[in-house]
Formats: sequence, C-alpha cells, structure tokens
Amino acid sequence: MTVRRLAVTLGDPGGIGPEIVLEAFSGRFCLPEAQYIIFGSSFILEETGRARGTRLDLKPWDGPNSPGTSGFFLRDIKTGIKSVQRGSSSAENGEASFLFFREAVEAARRGDVQGLITAPISKKSWNLAGAKWRGHTEYLAQFYPQAIMAFWSEKVKVALLSHHLPLREALDHITKERLLDYFLLMHRLLERSHPGQFEFLVAGLNPHAGEDGLLGSEEITEIIPAIQEAQRQGVRISGPYPPDTVFLQALRKSGQFVLSLFHDQGLIAFKLQAFDTGVNVTLGMPFVRTSPDHGTAFDIAGKGVASPQSLVEAIRLAYAFSSVSD
Amino acid sequence: MTVRRLAVTLGDPGGIGPEIVLEAFSGRFCLPEAQYIIFGSSFILEETGRARGTRLDLKPWDGPNSPGTSGFFLRDIKTGIKSVQRGSSSAENGEASFLFFREAVEAARRGDVQGLITAPISKKSWNLAGAKWRGHTEYLAQFYPQAIMAFWSEKVKVALLSHHLPLREALDHITKERLLDYFLLMHRLLERSHPGQFEFLVAGLNPHAGEDGLLGSEEITEIIPAIQEAQRQGVRISGPYPPDTVFLQALRKSGQFVLSLFHDQGLIAFKLQAFDTGVNVTLGMPFVRTSPDHGTAFDIAGKGVASPQSLVEAIRLAYAFSSVSD
Repeated sequence: MTVRRLAVTLGDPGGIGPEIVLEAFSGRFCLPEAQYIIFGSSFILEETGRARGTRLDLKPWDGPNSPGTSGFFLRDIKTGIKSVQRGSSSAENGEASFLFFREAVEAARRGDVQGLITAPISKKSWNLAGAKWRGHTEYLAQFYPQAIMAFWSEKVKVALLSHHLPLREALDHITKERLLDYFLLMHRLLERSHPGQFEFLVAGLNPHAGEDGLLGSEEITEIIPAIQEAQRQGVRISGPYPPDTVFLQALRKSGQFVLSLFHDQGLIAFKLQAFDTGVNVTLGMPFVRTSPDHGTAFDIAGKGVASPQSLVEAIRLAYAFSSVSD
Repeated sequence: MTVRRLAVTLGDPGGIGPEIVLEAFSGRFCLPEAQYIIFGSSFILEETGRARGTRLDLKPWDGPNSPGTSGFFLRDIKTGIKSVQRGSSSAENGEASFLFFREAVEAARRGDVQGLITAPISKKSWNLAGAKWRGHTEYLAQFYPQAIMAFWSEKVKVALLSHHLPLREALDHITKERLLDYFLLMHRLLERSHPGQFEFLVAGLNPHAGEDGLLGSEEITEIIPAIQEAQRQGVRISGPYPPDTVFLQALRKSGQFVLSLFHDQGLIAFKLQAFDTGVNVTLGMPFVRTSPDHGTAFDIAGKGVASPQSLVEAIRLAYAFSSVSD
C-alpha cells in the first residue's frame, strides 16, 4: 500500500502557524500514518522550537525521489527572514508564507502530494509582499475555478455552491445544471471519504424556500428539478428547506450535510456554531486542501497558548479526503 | 397618566395559544401595569381553564367606552366552535383565530389599543377557513406595507429591511434612500422605547461586506452612504460588517442591535441563537405588534406543558414599544 503524502505549509511566520504545526506533530495527537511534508523554513522552525523548548526531527524532502515512507519531512525553502518578527503583518513574512504555499501547490499540482494543509496566512502580509492574490482560495481559483468550499465541524458540515462572488452574481449560478453537478460531486466525494455516513439537506434560496412559488421561483424551476434528478441517480438528498431552519434541522441529527447556495447562507450558520474551531475544506480539485478556520492570531503568536486542535482536525480531514479527490 | 391598552389574541384554539395566555395572566409573572384585553371567546377560555383547574376573572371590554383602568378584560367574540378540537388544523379553528385577530387589528387601527400581542395561529387553519392572507404579517401588510419585522431575544436583536419577498426582489430594496429610512426609523423607535441602550451594527450584503468593491458594489454605492448620513444625523450606527461575522460581533457585547438586509440573513442567525424562545416584533405601524417566535405546537396542545415564557416576553416588549409606535 502506498503511503499518502500530505503537504503542510507553515503559514505566516509572524502568526501562530509555525507553533501550531510543531505542536500538531509533537506526538501529543494521534495522526493517521502518512508522509507529512512541512513546506517551510528550517530557520523559522528551529527558532520557534527553541522558544518552546521542543524540536522536531525532520528528514529532508526531495519530491517524488524521497523514500515513500511515513513520518515527518521538511521541504526547506529559503526566505529573506533573518529574525522572526511576530505579532503583525510584514512584507518579509508575506513573501515567506507565499513561497511556502506556492511550492506546496506546485507539488500538489504535479501529483507529488495528495493533500495540502495550510496554516493561516495574513492577507495584509501577502499584499505588502506584492502577491496579487488575496489569499489561498484566490490563488487556487486560478487553476481550479470550479472548486467547492466546504466547512466542517463536529456539529455542522456545510458546503457552498459559490464562494467569493458578489451576491447578485452568486444568484446567477443557481441553475439546475450547476446544482446537479454540485450535488453529484459532493455525493461522489463523501461516499468515498465517509461511505454511508451522510445525507444531504439542500437549503432553499428564497424566504421559506419560496413557499410553493409565492416567494420566489428558483426552487421550482432550478432547485427541485436538480434534487429530483440527483435522487434518481441514487443520492441521499432532500430539500429545498427554508434557509433559516435547515441548519437547525441538521443539528438535530448526526450525519446531516447542508448544501448551501451562496457564501453567507452557509457561513452565517457555520461561524455561529463553530467559530474558530472548524476546518475549511476545498474540494473538487485533483488534491484536497484543508485549513483551520481561524486566522494568524497575531495577538497570541509566540506566547505558547495557541491551540493546535483545528489544525489537527484539518490534517485528519485532509487524510480522509486525500485518496478520493476529484 | 393614561393606562396603556394592549390587545392579546388567543391564536388557534387547537394549539397552545389559549393555555399560554391563561398562564401568562395567572399572576405567576410580573407584568407591567396596563389594561390587557383578550380578544377571544369566553367559551374557549372557560374550557381551557377548566381543563387546567385555573380561572381568570375577566371584565367585559367595550372598546373606548370601557373604564381606563388596568387589569384583565375580555372582548368576547362569537365563533362556531362547540367543542375545542386540539392538535390539528381545522376550518373552524382557523375562522376563530382569524376573527380574534381581525377584531384586534381593527381596535388597534382605530387607536383603541396601543399594542397587539398575537398568540400563534395555524396558517393551514386560516387557509381551510378561506382566509386569503397567509398569516398575521400578510394581513397587516395590506395596511402597513412598510412595516419592519424585528426579532428580539436576550442575546440577539435583529431587524430585517425586507421580509416576505423573493430574494432577487429583496436585493432591489437595498437602496440608499430605503436604508436611511430604515436606520432613522429604528433609531427613533429604540431611542424612545430603550433610550441610550442600543447601538446599531449594519450587515453588509456581499461576502466579506464586498471587500472594498472587489466582491460587489452595493456596500460602496448604497450602504456606506446611508450609514454615513445616519451618523451625521446622530445615530449610533456602524458597518457594513461581513454578514457571516456581524452576529458574532453583536454577541460579544450587550447593547448591540443588528440591522440586516433581507429575511434569511437575519433569521438564519436569530433562529440558531434563539429558536422558539424569541419574540417577533412588527414596528413602523401606528401600534406595535409582538408575538412569540414559536408556532401552535399542536403536538403538546392541551397537555399542560407549554411554556408561556416567550408570550410573557412578547407582552413586556409590546408594553415597552406601545407608547412609541410610529
């Protein structure tokens, strides 16, 4: 059996990224057996480890030429950083986190790794460094414009039909064809990563899910036909449900996955239920990408109090999806 | 000082309405001193009271000719009900709850009462009875199309710029002029009912509140100008904030009132935080209307377990707003 290869980026050196990566790999957490490759800098890792009194034993990673064994590896990337400045954005830190991420994405696009876990970056640092992408998602979108963002926590799982689009444009994406593709893709991915575990609840678009056409027609013309077609193809899916109660319905029972129709419809609910504790998952690419749903946390960086829990969940979820990306 | 007059409708006789009205007025709860007039049927009240072993001493109410004293009154309305059928919708019950409500609204429109508290009706019963309105809100909308729906719980307060509109139409309502009217009306009402207690947080429309125009333009062309004009007029208001974090921000501090831009933007958050425990408030009419944010609860009707807490909160809130309606 081939060992899965998962890339982990360090994120912004001024934030909590390097310390939570070290913590996640410290042995305190039970991680699935895989080849974990940190895309970062030995200088930053050593400096972070010294401050915390911990040290990771990392083998150098040399792409597909490296041995196919499990364990912890480092792809050491040179940066201009001479001493780590924590607690705020900077061009130097932005350049470093951009290089770590870009190289990891290239490895993933080549197929050298099957999954990518990204520690938080600072969008401001990227901007100061002259990166023309606003963040991880936008960088990936140039290669995979149809990728789907999903959010995963113990209590709530939700995917978004579209993400970083103006709301009016997002509404134009709600067509029977796009919905059916979305439903079938989510079904295919989940059936391979978590077979038999989930059923899908589709959110409506209009108040009360349109109330039989009285409050809007998209449910009748687009959403219901797409659900019915997916059901005919064997997908366990139902709806459309009123957007303001579908999440309550999902919370009442385990194994429910909400398919939402635009960015904030899903994220208002998710952030209220799982703020800073969930995992962001990008699906529908040849590899899976996950990241903890929190930021750089500049205010606590380097203080030894940041929790690696969300990063650990992101690693586990990347493992679960890494054999099944699409 | 004139005693305030507040109408309370019994709601659907087959639901929990009659029993929670009796409970709310049983003396167990501290209610503000006012003239409370039940719009209902003595037959239903007596039947409900007998089953529960309680009895309310109600004086008959005869409109503005009644004495202006505080206490509990009954406007006895004849219905076709010969025995109360609980637990499901029926034309008979729909007709009764419609008559109670219509008469209470007429009293409110004449100015005979300053506030209206409505126990839950069954939309299906109204439909079976041939009422052409889908519910309380739609009935009131024929007289007050500009009325604003707000939702009130201990933790979250939120108002909606529009409510029962298809989402695409709701987006067309987001203009600087309408927003400014909305902000100023909410400010005027809250400053009279709860002086100095609230500041307003305005939700954006697009993901990340448009991210400086990258993800949509309405924030720049409509929302920010309306907020700035309201600030110039002395309103404590700020935003637009990302729709998926504005509610978290409001939860962190007391005294925050979220002004949302369409039905589900506000209600996804409100229902997750305060399902079945909040109060629905209709503002911007010559009288205030409140109702508990739960339904008829047919499954527990008549079993003596329904909680009157939300109705009690609805009564208190109607009292707070009843001198200040607009």
